[in-house]
Amino acid sequence: MNCELISVGTEILLGDILNTNVQYLSKALANLGIGVTHHSTVGDNKQRLLDTLETAFTRCDIVILTGGLGPTPDDLTKETCAEYFGKDLYPDDRILEEIESYFRLKNIKMPESNKKQALVPEDSIVLKNNNGTAPGFIMEKDGKIIIILPGPPKEMVPMYCESVEPYLRKFTNEIIFSKTIRTFGIGESAMSELVEDLLEGSNPTVAPYAKSGEALLRVTAKAENEAEAEKLMAPVVAEIEKRLGRYVYGIDCNSIEEATARLLTERKQTVAFAESCTGGLCAKRLTDISGASEIFHCGVVSYSNDIKHKVLGVKAETLDKYTAVSEQTAKEMAEGVRLIADATYGVSITGYAGPGSEKEVGTIYIAVTDGKKTAVKELLTGHRGDNCRDYNRHVAASNAFNQLRMMILSE
Amino acid sequence: MNCELISVGTEILLGDILNTNVQYLSKALANLGIGVTHHSTVGDNKQRLLDTLETAFTRCDIVILTGGLGPTPDDLTKETCAEYFGKDLYPDDRILEEIESYFRLKNIKMPESNKKQALVPEDSIVLKNNNGTAPGFIMEKDGKIIIILPGPPKEMVPMYCESVEPYLRKFTNEIIFSKTIRTFGIGESAMSELVEDLLEGSNPTVAPYAKSGEALLRVTAKAENEAEAEKLMAPVVAEIEKRLGRYVYGIDCNSIEEATARLLTERKQTVAFAESCTGGLCAKRLTDISGASEIFHCGVVSYSNDIKHKVLGVKAETLDKYTAVSEQTAKEMAEGVRLIADATYGVSITGYAGPGSEKEVGTIYIAVTDGKKTAVKELLTGHRGDNCRDYNRHVAASNAFNQLRMMILSE
Repeated sequence: MNCELISVGTEILLGDILNTNVQYLSKALANLGIGVTHHSTVGDNKQRLLDTLETAFTRCDIVILTGGLGPTPDDLTKETCAEYFGKDLYPDDRILEEIESYFRLKNIKMPESNKKQALVPEDSIVLKNNNGTAPGFIMEKDGKIIIILPGPPKEMVPMYCESVEPYLRKFTNEIIFSKTIRTFGIGESAMSELVEDLLEGSNPTVAPYAKSGEALLRVTAKAENEAEAEKLMAPVVAEIEKRLGRYVYGIDCNSIEEATARLLTERKQTVAFAESCTGGLCAKRLTDISGASEIFHCGVVSYSNDIKHKVLGVKAETLDKYTAVSEQTAKEMAEGVRLIADATYGVSITGYAGPGSEKEVGTIYIAVTDGKKTAVKELLTGHRGDNCRDYNRHVAASNAFNQLRMMILSE
Repeated sequence: MNCELISVGTEILLGDILNTNVQYLSKALANLGIGVTHHSTVGDNKQRLLDTLETAFTRCDIVILTGGLGPTPDDLTKETCAEYFGKDLYPDDRILEEIESYFRLKNIKMPESNKKQALVPEDSIVLKNNNGTAPGFIMEKDGKIIIILPGPPKEMVPMYCESVEPYLRKFTNEIIFSKTIRTFGIGESAMSELVEDLLEGSNPTVAPYAKSGEALLRVTAKAENEAEAEKLMAPVVAEIEKRLGRYVYGIDCNSIEEATARLLTERKQTVAFAESCTGGLCAKRLTDISGASEIFHCGVVSYSNDIKHKVLGVKAETLDKYTAVSEQTAKEMAEGVRLIADATYGVSITGYAGPGSEKEVGTIYIAVTDGKKTAVKELLTGHRGDNCRDYNRHVAASNAFNQLRMMILSE
């Protein structure tokens, strides 16, 4: 059973929108064992959408469309899909009432244009939208299935989980199950060479890839059920872990911060951050994780020398003699914030995030302390120029989490 | 002149990668006046890539492919495109030397597999990769143009800017120029109704859309040059600004934080953040902007009552009587951090980001103070359930920036 995803919206073709829907749906469908063979994006243009549907159904059984369900005249996904299947649209009073009540709850009068969202293709299954006004639809004809979902992720994701996944489950008898092995501190090529022979396997398959300065391996098995898949994958995963050793920070773990948070939680320890160039990114990434309050109580963003001195207690002499971007300042920042927060570990980051082509850009100092010893590392990202800022900040924060992880593991 | 983007990589179809390349390229091509009519994603599969190329060239002149230039055997974009144009690949010593020197600089031995990256399709223009090992290529045949770029954005983006944009400029004689008018505090439908008649225009066009809790209007003109386009757009933009009034926070401004930062910079003022549920997100978003150190010196992430009391000076009685998520605590947090930072404004956020279905989730208090008066607002995001955390944190931070913007403008 194959599926294609069609994203509808001129705003995507113009680059106004980062299309997160296809990533979400691809992952969700892979877990169901439904292969996604193509993604397409097409503008708010009826003929092009019809052509894209036509092409898609020459090579797959299910097409999932997102976007183009809004109240404005250029929203035409529902209308075009109904035409493709030769179906009429009719107004549905129950849906109109739901849309009206959505606006009443927010104490807003329903704009006239929203009435269009209560039009339903005949013979379709209507999918309730609990987070917006546009319902979704499932249409079936001659073995072809069209699923239409709203574009905004906050509406699309719950609708997929509540209505689409239960619907699709009946079509799958084999699941694809995969594990992602995440590493830190080794490149994709070097990692691949260490496991080269394992990349030849067929069930499970092992595939390397790189993402945001990290190298990953995805192990994927096809089986009737999860237990069977686990049994196929276990020896391969164990072998990879053995070969990659301390580079592996997590399996089925979303990020280096999550791996580090797990270690802290297990040990009932806490961390505090003193951030300069990352400007709150470490704190933000750790608190992206629900429940972070168990392991994190305090972060200080010290974006000036004055705050480094006054709030974190970095000595004025240190700042004068070595400057704000130095091993010495990093050390005192980490030690200072640990004391303020009364935390198990203090972590600091100070550096030049850029942009700029000066040789200092990309030079970052990271310190981790447990109150007895402090480890300071110099990180040279090698990234300068116009687009380096996000990368340098991200990689600096990731390295800080990894450096903390290493200290936790060494204790 | 039309263009299609083809992203190559099974990892994208599996949902492992968020495809940011298509957004970047779409925006860049739109600015050149090159229309992007389709995006496609296809896996690491030669036949499917050949079919996708075939389909693309039935409807466009230029195809830009990203990804599949890596050193592993499943990377086959270059090989497939060469086959499509009937060209051979030959090893290029100069490129091999560049790849070897890339590894030498990092003090790593070049893995044998990287040699594949020095293979060049005959008659192609080679695009130097200053940020990785895989060169890009431009191939022309019978009026068709194929441009192949590496998948990692940190390699793709500089290569596009340095080599592809200058190459494409010669094909455009008309540019598409657009302005995005960003609003805060009004929904997409309500905004659209206020400018309904303007949505009918053809040059410039006006199109509404919604993004991350904000409503935007894109005004787009086609003209021979920028000055001509500006002249076409000016009266429409002025009319929109007049009708939407204080909802408009910026034109051609990337975000509410950027709009707020501009106001602070113009006035030579500073802001300090005290963040609870947003956990550093305000500080992070403000310091995403290069040069933020002029207007921001200090942020405190106070993720526990103890830190709110000890670092920010929130009274113990306030926390006891009203709890950490209250107007009163928000007020004292904002006032406290302003004093610590000696800033013009103090901004605080405290609330329940979730996830969870309890009725408190989505309740957030935001305070802004200038030292004389403090404005506190209750924000009810209405988002609970499993996927609410990112949304609630994002919207809370955006509202904090907007509330600060409103106070700055009122002074």
